[in-house]
Amino acid sequence: MKESIQNKGEKVKIASRVLAVTGTALKDKALGIIAEEIDKNREAIKVENSKDIDAGRAKGLSDAFIDRLTLNDKRIDGMIKILHDVINLKDPIGEIYNMNAMPNGLKVGQMRVPIGVIGIIFESRPNVCIEVASLTIKSGNGVLLKGGSDAIHSNVCLIRLIKEGLKKAGLPEGCVEIIEDTKRESVLEMVKMKSFIDIIIPRGGLQLIRFVEENSVIPVIRHDQGICHTYVDEFANIQMAVSICFNAKVQRPGVCNAMETLLVHAEIAPAFLPLMWEKYAEAGVKLRGCEKTKKILPDITDAVEEDWSAEYLDLILAVKTVESLDEAITHINQFSSHHSDSIVTDHYGNGMRFITEVDSAACFINASTRFSDGNEFGLGAEMGISNQKLHVRGPMGLKDLTAPKYIILGNGQVRL
Amino acid sequence: MKESIQNKGEKVKIASRVLAVTGTALKDKALGIIAEEIDKNREAIKVENSKDIDAGRAKGLSDAFIDRLTLNDKRIDGMIKILHDVINLKDPIGEIYNMNAMPNGLKVGQMRVPIGVIGIIFESRPNVCIEVASLTIKSGNGVLLKGGSDAIHSNVCLIRLIKEGLKKAGLPEGCVEIIEDTKRESVLEMVKMKSFIDIIIPRGGLQLIRFVEENSVIPVIRHDQGICHTYVDEFANIQMAVSICFNAKVQRPGVCNAMETLLVHAEIAPAFLPLMWEKYAEAGVKLRGCEKTKKILPDITDAVEEDWSAEYLDLILAVKTVESLDEAITHINQFSSHHSDSIVTDHYGNGMRFITEVDSAACFINASTRFSDGNEFGLGAEMGISNQKLHVRGPMGLKDLTAPKYIILGNGQVRL
Repeated sequence: MKESIQNKGEKVKIASRVLAVTGTALKDKALGIIAEEIDKNREAIKVENSKDIDAGRAKGLSDAFIDRLTLNDKRIDGMIKILHDVINLKDPIGEIYNMNAMPNGLKVGQMRVPIGVIGIIFESRPNVCIEVASLTIKSGNGVLLKGGSDAIHSNVCLIRLIKEGLKKAGLPEGCVEIIEDTKRESVLEMVKMKSFIDIIIPRGGLQLIRFVEENSVIPVIRHDQGICHTYVDEFANIQMAVSICFNAKVQRPGVCNAMETLLVHAEIAPAFLPLMWEKYAEAGVKLRGCEKTKKILPDITDAVEEDWSAEYLDLILAVKTVESLDEAITHINQFSSHHSDSIVTDHYGNGMRFITEVDSAACFINASTRFSDGNEFGLGAEMGISNQKLHVRGPMGLKDLTAPKYIILGNGQVRL
Repeated sequence: MKESIQNKGEKVKIASRVLAVTGTALKDKALGIIAEEIDKNREAIKVENSKDIDAGRAKGLSDAFIDRLTLNDKRIDGMIKILHDVINLKDPIGEIYNMNAMPNGLKVGQMRVPIGVIGIIFESRPNVCIEVASLTIKSGNGVLLKGGSDAIHSNVCLIRLIKEGLKKAGLPEGCVEIIEDTKRESVLEMVKMKSFIDIIIPRGGLQLIRFVEENSVIPVIRHDQGICHTYVDEFANIQMAVSICFNAKVQRPGVCNAMETLLVHAEIAPAFLPLMWEKYAEAGVKLRGCEKTKKILPDITDAVEEDWSAEYLDLILAVKTVESLDEAITHINQFSSHHSDSIVTDHYGNGMRFITEVDSAACFINASTRFSDGNEFGLGAEMGISNQKLHVRGPMGLKDLTAPKYIILGNGQVRL
């Protein structure tokens, strides 16, 4: 009989208390052993992965989906690299900062400690298991994972190897647990387990996020949609704008930091749009334009209201011509998913206004939104990308898996 | 007819966008004018306050409650002082930090921005209106307040003066709104207003917190109970222990950072407990002891299981004799509300283990838990004290009313 979800939650909670007070050297040793386990068990991983691939094929999943699911030697190398990358990151636990002496002689400061137990619900690729477990182990947190049914054999195999590594390092294997039941009801059970889980991270489609937000009694960190914009300002360098807009839409259209809406200032539109359109047409990008845009590119499809809030994740792009920077900022603040938005401009003041006034997790000047990523931002691995405002906004790295705690050093002070 | 709660929420949201991009000088000017309005309208404040006091007396509220409700000249001076204190705090908005150059030349950093709109539900004294509004205005956030029915006339009067000040400074008065309807259903409506409110702060009893946590679709920052412990270690200085434990229980027993449980190491208990008991008895403190404690103090009441999780807010104290530091830490991590806990010890290693392993927002060595307070920690005014782990833990000051945002400065970078 499988262990109940409650039992697993309790096991992680108990193990997390041990991990919370484990030193950096031992945590790094465990990550190193896990990397060895993965390396030694390549064949077992591929055998389990092939079960998911066969099931996916039988279910008629798309080639792109099967590709994301597949674990070959190159991808196993990638997982091993992540483990070593995380070993090389500085351990944030125990850092003491903002320590100041008060007038009465008390020394008051803050110390970084683990959050406790992280619950993560993900629908994506099996290597998420490795990225998540390496970050939670290094930061002294327990983790309870729940992956999607399509990768269940691969996920369970990877977690087994992680637990093996923890055990060999002398750490409790309960630091990492996975819920094998793939039903939606188990998500519901998980988000009510307040006594065992400290935060819930849903990574996936809007439907999953909504479900978790509406039902969770545990604080949630949303990792959801990317409706990203690029605004080509009146003072943009046209060649740079073409290159950035091409990259943001075409380089990998199926991910959350790809551009979904292009905004163009009316003054530059007649020079910029035809050039851009030529490049996009070559790559097979289909445009949906507003009325003003269609006066310049009459052959493209009409944009309708829904296009401004669409996350195509495909070679489709909504295009709107605007009269001013203000109109661009207002449009973005209304329709963006507050993930990543970029301005292309040579005008200092317009750039500064854009990054100050656009209400998104990542605001770019003269760069592709595709850079919105923990690795590209220098954080190493990431738990996902948060587009909510509390605790962490943007890529969630190692430091974001810690909580602050006040420490107060006295020598007998009492309050008067 | 009164404005609907939805209308007020929308008004704050719109006004907050203006406040978010308002400079420090103008925000400080508004706070100064509000201080003048309060000063000029002392009589009006006292008239409105007397309505609440009369209603409270008619309802039979306790003298202590009526005292907390009362606004006299000294307390009005206190509110004016808070406004000036907040003017003197450094504006955290716009601060840029962690700015680093990436290998591809991108400059990636973080900028502090306002959260947006804060919803706060409080049951306490009317001067909370001033403390909260001064912090939200200074940090560029809108605020929607809902106070308790007992202070409704005082609250509405203070908010009217704040709005007057905002208007005179040329800022939208919608930056601060109060819900005048004091029914519980209006809390329910508030916690569903996801499109207008970014975070909800419930300040009050456990019943309110639970209700908000179970019903809110908006992220919540809990400000709740204080079940605070003091642990007198085997290596404590006995005189210091007596002085700290007396202060933590007696100086102001009705507040969240007062001590509710005293833990004593068995080795020091025979010397410490009789001395402590003498001091407590003089102050009228009633003790409830475990079996081991009763062997030393046979005349006190027996502690029952419920005493370990009781928040007395009164001159009552649970006392437990423990055999080791480990037993003390385990007890605290099980029964504490994770608010504030203190160790009294002269042993370096025991002190360090205590502040590292006790899972609370504020961990003290050799000081009274009564210092757990934004002002005492050097933060200036506070929104309350958070005992959850996400975003802010412990006193919530000005900086905690901001969200981070990534800013990325490029010169044409695209992702390869």
